[in-house]
Amino acid sequence: MSHKRPAVILLSGGLDSSTVLAIAQRDGYELNALSFNYGQRHNHEIEAARRIAIHYGVVRHEIATIDLRVFGGSALTSDIAVPKGRDLKDASAVPVTYVPARNTIFLSYALAFAEVANSHDIFIGVNALDYSGYPDCRPEYILAFERMANLATRLGTEGEPINIRTPLINLSKAEIIALGTSLGVDYSITTSCYDPSATGQACGECDACQLRLAGFSGAGVADPITYAPNPVRA
Amino acid sequence: MSHKRPAVILLSGGLDSSTVLAIAQRDGYELNALSFNYGQRHNHEIEAARRIAIHYGVVRHEIATIDLRVFGGSALTSDIAVPKGRDLKDASAVPVTYVPARNTIFLSYALAFAEVANSHDIFIGVNALDYSGYPDCRPEYILAFERMANLATRLGTEGEPINIRTPLINLSKAEIIALGTSLGVDYSITTSCYDPSATGQACGECDACQLRLAGFSGAGVADPITYAPNPVRA
Repeated sequence: MSHKRPAVILLSGGLDSSTVLAIAQRDGYELNALSFNYGQRHNHEIEAARRIAIHYGVVRHEIATIDLRVFGGSALTSDIAVPKGRDLKDASAVPVTYVPARNTIFLSYALAFAEVANSHDIFIGVNALDYSGYPDCRPEYILAFERMANLATRLGTEGEPINIRTPLINLSKAEIIALGTSLGVDYSITTSCYDPSATGQACGECDACQLRLAGFSGAGVADPITYAPNPVRA
Repeated sequence: MSHKRPAVILLSGGLDSSTVLAIAQRDGYELNALSFNYGQRHNHEIEAARRIAIHYGVVRHEIATIDLRVFGGSALTSDIAVPKGRDLKDASAVPVTYVPARNTIFLSYALAFAEVANSHDIFIGVNALDYSGYPDCRPEYILAFERMANLATRLGTEGEPINIRTPLINLSKAEIIALGTSLGVDYSITTSCYDPSATGQACGECDACQLRLAGFSGAGVADPITYAPNPVRA
């Protein structure tokens, strides 16, 4: 039986949440991971999350099947095209890849998991710099969720408060990758692409791939995943 | 095309949410209803929600399939026995029928629906009197959720705020039934029981049945549903 403090970590299979998992491990938490099958266009995220959870020896990895397609409204869960080759510097408006209330739904499930696992620490890899167009990646949103969470649950209303921990919120992608590399994160088993090929190769052109590539470049680290061949980029 | 303001109403199939739907209709909203298939012991709640939505002519009724059993921890979604004949006056502790973070998860989905439906008004039939053991039925919780919701979404951060409307929060069950009766709510198509028979008859003994029966009695109105025969009660 573990005497570590249990933490619940939202694990998408991407590089941010993998880095967060490594941080929670470094900080001595018992690792409980939560992933979602939410009607993503491809199942590669879940597969990556499973690989990463096994790699880190998490004590419990739950994959909740949830239905975010029911309302429509996002390129990540519906037939809207994922934009390619977008200039991210112009990305002031909320992007079409924004899924309505996604982080709120994810954190709500994490809160249920935390209550059952008796965990006062929920980790999420949100980032306010690279996802400035997403309202639910901002620090003021996270603080408001944390306050609500402490009023919502038996766990939060009895004794020690619940903390929503966002260790990446003010880091650039390059800083995240540099930190993860220093913690030994194996980025070869992570996935970031919004629109991978049937064989799971990243497109290299969607917002997520562009951010990832620029991050590795900025950190001076080679990205260990393979990208689909592209005549423009080659 | 409707020119009414769209509202999203959480509709469980019970008498509280049916009364809330009637209130939203009275107040002139375009009705969008949201129900959940969340691994309840019986499907009678969803069937009741469908009947009620049709009865009120809601413009859109979504039934989101979500997985609340994944974490365990409640008599409503797992193998823990539903308590019968409990003295509700002693119900100071959180009951075993409490589902961890349930209202937070439900409201999070309603928030996603609201964003897609461009609705600034989410109605939920929470009640702070009869469910005093549930932390997520208290006014301070609802206010904290509302504040979070306005930071979480494109809808809430642009222009008019999102309101979480709880018209029943300070009413007794008898007052809810009296109000609903004055609005013409057909309580014969609602369901409340936590543990109905295979044919859908209410048990008459779980917390929800006890509250319902006491509420109709207090309102001086006959409960139009039928209860399973019980030698003790008969």
